[in-house]
Parts: sequence; structure tokens; C-alpha cells
Amino acid sequence: MKQQQRSEETRAHILAAAQACFAAYGYEAAGVATICARAGVSKGAFYHHFPTKQALFLELLNRWLADLDAEMARIRGGAGTVPEALLGIAGVAGHIFEAGRGQLPLFLEFWTQAAYDPEIWQATIEPYRRFRSYFAALIQAGIDEGSLAPVDPTLAAQVFFSLATGLVVQGMLDPEGADWARVAREGVERFLRAFARDGGRLATDERR
Amino acid sequence: MKQQQRSEETRAHILAAAQACFAAYGYEAAGVATICARAGVSKGAFYHHFPTKQALFLELLNRWLADLDAEMARIRGGAGTVPEALLGIAGVAGHIFEAGRGQLPLFLEFWTQAAYDPEIWQATIEPYRRFRSYFAALIQAGIDEGSLAPVDPTLAAQVFFSLATGLVVQGMLDPEGADWARVAREGVERFLRAFARDGGRLATDERR
Repeated sequence: MKQQQRSEETRAHILAAAQACFAAYGYEAAGVATICARAGVSKGAFYHHFPTKQALFLELLNRWLADLDAEMARIRGGAGTVPEALLGIAGVAGHIFEAGRGQLPLFLEFWTQAAYDPEIWQATIEPYRRFRSYFAALIQAGIDEGSLAPVDPTLAAQVFFSLATGLVVQGMLDPEGADWARVAREGVERFLRAFARDGGRLATDERR
Repeated sequence: MKQQQRSEETRAHILAAAQACFAAYGYEAAGVATICARAGVSKGAFYHHFPTKQALFLELLNRWLADLDAEMARIRGGAGTVPEALLGIAGVAGHIFEAGRGQLPLFLEFWTQAAYDPEIWQATIEPYRRFRSYFAALIQAGIDEGSLAPVDPTLAAQVFFSLATGLVVQGMLDPEGADWARVAREGVERFLRAFARDGGRLATDERR
């Protein structure tokens, strides 16, 4: 029990050290030796926890995505209807843009390596597919509750997720180019208007 | 005059050879020596035309974007209204996805290098800003002609361009994940409905 606890602490140390090293030096330049030195662990301990640096990066990514999942579930739980949930999700877009600020080079380096390795690539794009499925289920729930028009939920989710992806990418590419949090809000409001059951009038119109 | 013609031919040879080498070996691995060998030119001739490999890649990118500009201008010229033009642009999205297929690793490598060089980065993101301005002007024209509601054209263009960016990125990340050309059409139709003057009815509805 005590040993397991120590093992989890070591794992957490490695992850924190890796995150700091990636931010400081970039993905390529932050070697396993550098990460081990910062974490105060041996290479043996490192490879006991992570087979490769890519596996470690994927875990950091998945932890960040799990936080995002939890945040979306929290918003969904507090929202009366699906349109309210989607507007709530747009409302936290600002935090996502803040978290992404300055991280673009790191992601680009990781993706560049992943793009040449089919197995890593599958693991990398899997969350995107999962998010699309999540939004398809959410839109289906909106159709079922009568707040959204009876559209093809998969297609609507693909449109919604394209908007979200484009916002995140532009927020990373060109953070000063626009008030991306405001664009996110406007985009989701327009999307809801386009997909709303009553042809475009929303309760939220009064709030504008 | 003849010398100028020869110089332009050399430039065209280098560009064609570079495109082939980048596609075959990736951005990093396609060295200037390899490109010169394939083009049948000396390194001196190469550097006479392009100060760096990055400059060459940017020119390839700008030529592709110029083709896209010309295509959009052609569609705009043939369209009666702005909504028709936007639907026409969505209609050629399939070609853009085809052109992007398999190019992702190349773009990722280039962007990774560009992300660490502020000057190259500015040149890289400049076209995105230009496209956003183009769409803002197009939406303003739609407002002026009365086909679109009197919205903030810059904000509407940012929403529209986020959708477009997200579609292109997802089409590159996950080409088999959806029928992206269909998602593009659906997305543009829905957003036009949300931005249309008469609260969501379009002449194009009859065509569906």
C-alpha cells in the first residue's frame, strides 16, 4: 500500500517535471534525462512508468482533456436545457484559450512526431472523435427534449465541433487577432439559432 | 528579356522540385542539396532565388493561397448574392480537402519551425488575417445588399472563418472521420440561416 502510494507520487513528479521541461525547452529538446533530473528520479524509474516520451505527453494531454470532460459534465449538470449547456460550454472557452496560449509550438512538435507514427496518431486523434460523439449525444438530447430541431445529430455535432476546433486553433495561431472568447459566444449563439426548434428564436435572445 | 525568361524557368523548376521533395521526404529531410539535384540547378542558383528553405516553402504556400483567392473571386463574380457566393465557396471545400489530404505532416513540420521564428511566423499567419478581412468585406456586402442581417461583419467573419478553419484542420487530422465536404455545406447553410436578414429563410432552402 505504502509502495503503491510512493509509486503514484513518483509518477506525479515525473508528469509535473515533464510539463515544466516541455514548456521551458520544447518537446524535442526536453530529453528524458532532463525530465529525470528535474523530477529527481532515475531513468529506470521513468521507463517503469512511461515506455516513451510520447506516452508521457499523451498522458499529460489526456489529463488535460479529462479536466475538460469534467468541466463540461459539471456545466451540463447545472444546465436546464441543451442550448443552455452549449452556451455554458462556450462561456468557459476563455479559460481554454488561456490554457492554450503559448502552447502552440509544443503541440506542433508533438503532432509532427505523432504524424509519422500511426499508433501514436490514433491515440492522438481518438479524443477528437470522442468529443464529436459527446456533442452528437448532447444534440440528440436537445432534439429529444424539444429544444433543437430534429436534425441529423452526427452532422450537427460535426458542424459544432468544427466551429470549436477552428476557434481553438485560431486562438493558438493568432491569440491577438481577435477576442476569441467573444467569437466563441457569438458562434455558439448563432449555431443554436440555426439549429433551434422554433426556427431561430431562443430564450437567450432577450439576454443579448 | 531572354535571360529573365530563363530565370523564371529556373525558379519554376526549383519550386516544382521542392514540392516533390517535400511530399516525398518531409520538410526537414528534404534538404536544399536534394532539391537542387532534383531541379538540376546549382546551390548558387537556388540561393539567388530563395534566401532560405522557409522562404521557398512560404512561396509554395502563397501560390496555393493565390489560387484559392482566384477561385473565390471567380465564384463571387458568378454569384448573384453574398449567400450564394458563400454557398459556392463551401461547394469547392471538397477540392480543398483533397488538396490537403496527406499534407498534414508537411504543414506540421513547417509550422513547428515557423513557430520559433517570429518573422516567419508573421508571414505564415498573415494569409489567415487576410482571409478573415476578405470574409468581413463579403459579409458587409451582404448586409449592404440586404441579404444578411445588420450584424457586426468582423465578428460574423470570425465565426465563419472559425468554422472554415475547423473544417480544414479536421479534414487533415481525420480525413476518414466524416464526409467533410458535406459537413462544410451543412455548416455554411446553417450559419447563413442564422445570419440571414429574414430570420432564417433562404432562397436556397428550396434546393435542399
